Amino acid sequence: MRSRHMMKFAGLALAAGIAVVLLGRAAFGGATDRDLIRQAGELFGRLPKTMTSEKNPITPEKARLGKMLFYETRVSADGTTSCARCHPISRYAADGLQKPVGDSCKAGPRNAPTVLNAAAQISEHWVGNRTDVEDQARQALTSPAFGMPSNNAVENALAGIKGYATLFKSAFPGDVRPVSIGNFALAVGAFERTLVTPSPFDAFIRGDSTALTSDGKRGLSAFVEAQCAGCHSGTYVGGQMYDKFGIVAPYWRYTKSKAIDLGRFEITHDEADRYVFKVPILRNVAMTAPYFHDGSVSRLDTAIWIMGKVQHGEELSKAQIERIHAFLRSLTGVIPEEIETVPILPATE
Amino acid sequence: MRSRHMMKFAGLALAAGIAVVLLGRAAFGGATDRDLIRQAGELFGRLPKTMTSEKNPITPEKARLGKMLFYETRVSADGTTSCARCHPISRYAADGLQKPVGDSCKAGPRNAPTVLNAAAQISEHWVGNRTDVEDQARQALTSPAFGMPSNNAVENALAGIKGYATLFKSAFPGDVRPVSIGNFALAVGAFERTLVTPSPFDAFIRGDSTALTSDGKRGLSAFVEAQCAGCHSGTYVGGQMYDKFGIVAPYWRYTKSKAIDLGRFEITHDEADRYVFKVPILRNVAMTAPYFHDGSVSRLDTAIWIMGKVQHGEELSKAQIERIHAFLRSLTGVIPEEIETVPILPATE
Repeated sequence: MRSRHMMKFAGLALAAGIAVVLLGRAAFGGATDRDLIRQAGELFGRLPKTMTSEKNPITPEKARLGKMLFYETRVSADGTTSCARCHPISRYAADGLQKPVGDSCKAGPRNAPTVLNAAAQISEHWVGNRTDVEDQARQALTSPAFGMPSNNAVENALAGIKGYATLFKSAFPGDVRPVSIGNFALAVGAFERTLVTPSPFDAFIRGDSTALTSDGKRGLSAFVEAQCAGCHSGTYVGGQMYDKFGIVAPYWRYTKSKAIDLGRFEITHDEADRYVFKVPILRNVAMTAPYFHDGSVSRLDTAIWIMGKVQHGEELSKAQIERIHAFLRSLTGVIPEEIETVPILPATE
Repeated sequence: MRSRHMMKFAGLALAAGIAVVLLGRAAFGGATDRDLIRQAGELFGRLPKTMTSEKNPITPEKARLGKMLFYETRVSADGTTSCARCHPISRYAADGLQKPVGDSCKAGPRNAPTVLNAAAQISEHWVGNRTDVEDQARQALTSPAFGMPSNNAVENALAGIKGYATLFKSAFPGDVRPVSIGNFALAVGAFERTLVTPSPFDAFIRGDSTALTSDGKRGLSAFVEAQCAGCHSGTYVGGQMYDKFGIVAPYWRYTKSKAIDLGRFEITHDEADRYVFKVPILRNVAMTAPYFHDGSVSRLDTAIWIMGKVQHGEELSKAQIERIHAFLRSLTGVIPEEIETVPILPATE
């Protein structure tokens, strides 16, 4: 698994390296907006409409049911927790807390990232211990977050809400027993695979040179120049690889972390994975404070400064930070209309 | 206060009494749909578009801000609680719990009623200890539900979210210091005053005889015949008066109450108020289980049976219960489109 990702990473890094040279030249050699647009397009790529999966093709019925289940609290032990609790659309699908709070007030181990664009990542959760959004949705139910005692208990809870029977049946027409934990995961996954948020940066890449402010454009060049795009790579500006947090200095020297997190080492027990985390997607980052795996930093400019320090041993200037900040703001997307509406759930009887 | 309500009640009861006679005659004397429609219109009245208040006129700016604040968790001590937490639109603005759970997992003292149509009531909360929705919104923040230490702390929290400055200013253009707890209450109140949910029953009253099923029509007559409408009166089918829960038998003999609640006595210390609660609005009741002030009953048919028993000393037949149930389902309204969309909140920075 790891080696595959590393190869993928190597390929991306090579592409990024070439683009950095081009983009650096473009931005600092008096290049035109057109050059910058073309080169940003080559480096990051165009945003698709949905995040497809061969294993879980999106159908309207599945996505519609998944959206309902995303808001469903009756699949949590104390009836207080749904996916939407920690991923409220009103806050760009993140909860604003350092660490999420779920069933019976239990805090999660790491900051809850937004689910917007999350399905495009190599894996889910900060240490990649969920293979995809479907796996995340399924495992969440019997984790402390939802606190359900078993998959059976979840299935009984869903079967007890009569209105779901026909909805599951139409979403999974071939199934003998459509109301199942597996189909819960597929439906929520299908919904989450629609959560793509086109941003001004995407309009820029598509050719609209006015979509970025001049600070945003300078920030894009600064972002690439400072080698941020080496890891925060691809269409989603991150989410494609793992890396050590604190390559040149321990991260906790600069963050306000209350504890040292071993990161992916916890899962793999591989020394090379000590303090290794998934590189987060930066789309909508300006809307989803606080930052890092432990939510220990509340301001984005501080987070940018810390990244320069601990990943590159570089003291980014105030001007560099401001420009990168402006570029990151251009990654704040539009919440699609069909996501903005709340689904009305069936009654319990 | 009480006497005013009692007079209002007396007036309503008189009107209801006359209508009961008429409606009883209409339903059971072979009356036409037209008679039933006319008489239901006279008894319950037509639903307005919004629930206006001279003290707090609804403006688009105020209602828009109020909707955002309704979803705002940064005004709670632990950052987990907003109005929407206990009043999620996806569940008809009720939480499905026996008692609500707020800040730091503290349970509220009584079942959280829906906020849909709630602004039209004589007062808020089960025992009427909040004068109106504005008072409820204001006091909630420093109650255990949100757990904020003071009004000042709320105002500081709001002032810390820069994006709110212009929104408060445009909602309260005349104010020197628009970001205030008073304006929080007015904005949330203005939003809540728009939460009117037109139902099939309203279409019926407006003249569409097909809007109710034949069971629904029989249920309407049965509801009036069984004297439910004496207390669940007016356009909102309740919310207009207080009454003892358990007039002919203690309620806890039939409910699954874990404790005896003294009701309004807790507030007034008047012996006449022992076990007295506000008569709840029945609009959307089929969507907002569980029932009663302590959420101790999960099924609506059981709740109807209990009401017959403890309020009238009557054993409603299965057929009566089924018909009344059908009528109550016709009170399930449509969630207005502008309520169905989630507001996107300003970032913390």
